[in-house]
Amino acid sequence: MAAAAPPPPPSEAHIFLPEATPPGDTLFTRIRLATVADVPHIHKLIHQMAVFERLTHLCEATPESLSATLFPPSTPPPFTSFTVLMLELSSAPFPPPAAADPHFSPFLKPVHLDLPIDDPDRADFRSNALDVLGHDVAIGGFVLFFPNYSTFLAKPGFYIEDIFVRECYRRKGLGRLLLSAVAAQAAKMGYGRVEWVVLDWNVNAIKFYEQMGAKILPEWRICRLTGDELQAFGRINL
Amino acid sequence: MAAAAPPPPPSEAHIFLPEATPPGDTLFTRIRLATVADVPHIHKLIHQMAVFERLTHLCEATPESLSATLFPPSTPPPFTSFTVLMLELSSAPFPPPAAADPHFSPFLKPVHLDLPIDDPDRADFRSNALDVLGHDVAIGGFVLFFPNYSTFLAKPGFYIEDIFVRECYRRKGLGRLLLSAVAAQAAKMGYGRVEWVVLDWNVNAIKFYEQMGAKILPEWRICRLTGDELQAFGRINL
Repeated sequence: MAAAAPPPPPSEAHIFLPEATPPGDTLFTRIRLATVADVPHIHKLIHQMAVFERLTHLCEATPESLSATLFPPSTPPPFTSFTVLMLELSSAPFPPPAAADPHFSPFLKPVHLDLPIDDPDRADFRSNALDVLGHDVAIGGFVLFFPNYSTFLAKPGFYIEDIFVRECYRRKGLGRLLLSAVAAQAAKMGYGRVEWVVLDWNVNAIKFYEQMGAKILPEWRICRLTGDELQAFGRINL
Repeated sequence: MAAAAPPPPPSEAHIFLPEATPPGDTLFTRIRLATVADVPHIHKLIHQMAVFERLTHLCEATPESLSATLFPPSTPPPFTSFTVLMLELSSAPFPPPAAADPHFSPFLKPVHLDLPIDDPDRADFRSNALDVLGHDVAIGGFVLFFPNYSTFLAKPGFYIEDIFVRECYRRKGLGRLLLSAVAAQAAKMGYGRVEWVVLDWNVNAIKFYEQMGAKILPEWRICRLTGDELQAFGRINL
């Protein structure tokens, strides 16, 4: 978005139009561990991702199935299994983390905005986080990842299954923040790699990932056994 | 190997030359969960895999680092984290599993051989398994896999990092056995997918995987953040 563009007319729909500071000044971001209370938002974000990828016919996730698989009764510690980080956004600063969490200390970062953001879905994406500042906190996106393993390195790593930022918040460096949070955690834990996949025609994404230091592996192809073909193995006698 | 080919001359080097049954008759296989006692074999198999892929310069694994990462002091239950299955081979049948293991009941299957197998590395790959039958048991290969997750299915699956069969035991359906064991376990657990990767020029492997029911995804590319580029994220202030 060009800095020289004229500001849009004032509107009640600008969730991030602060009352006490100049319009469109700063967006405060927080990346924190998800809890089961975030499942309704995670479900809506996954649905938006399916719409973006035109794959809604393949999306079978429900809030119930997400709760059962991401937050089972004895949820493993963060980073040892499926892990979700939520991206929260506010027009006011987040308070510093109350106490040192043994697993993960939320990342806080202010982001400069040239213009205020019009969030058409703000009512659907109000965060469950306690709003100690009297300001709305919106869910802007998420990243879901889990440990993988390299036998050559004899080290764990992370595989990022999904990284998603809602449309009205894109092109502001927020995807980079989510990816950086996972990479920083991997480096902190002494892990060897962070991996994910990208569609070969998505040249903008590939360029962005390369700028972040990633290599694209041109020769490897994913093999997937699923559906009836997978279930058939449950019936065979090896 | 053609059935009409003449048998090779008798040799002490034929580990699977049984004394009481016709030469080259049956190879008895067992697929069981690995334990920390298998690490020396796992390490040698990984090294052979690196030689086969001409990637020994990238292979940093040691028995110590494999023990520490695959079998940490509080090893999670099988299938919830990094999991290794060992392929064992013998000229005599394996006994039926002693008791129903709550996690995994070993797969036992006899495989017909046209000719006995000459195993030049038999001394290095003698299994640690108790040999109740008075016969050598050889380690023939392994598969290493771990849970992954599909947000669209809201289900876990398995990702196979490595599947390897020692050279002298190839082209006998043993790779298929290892892959089938993982797929059967996934189906039994109600999981949604089993995934792995293949090099795009390895047409024989691709054909084999397709015959087993897998789809090859042509458009996806792997992105990998590793080495100095990854470590740099541990030092930045988000």
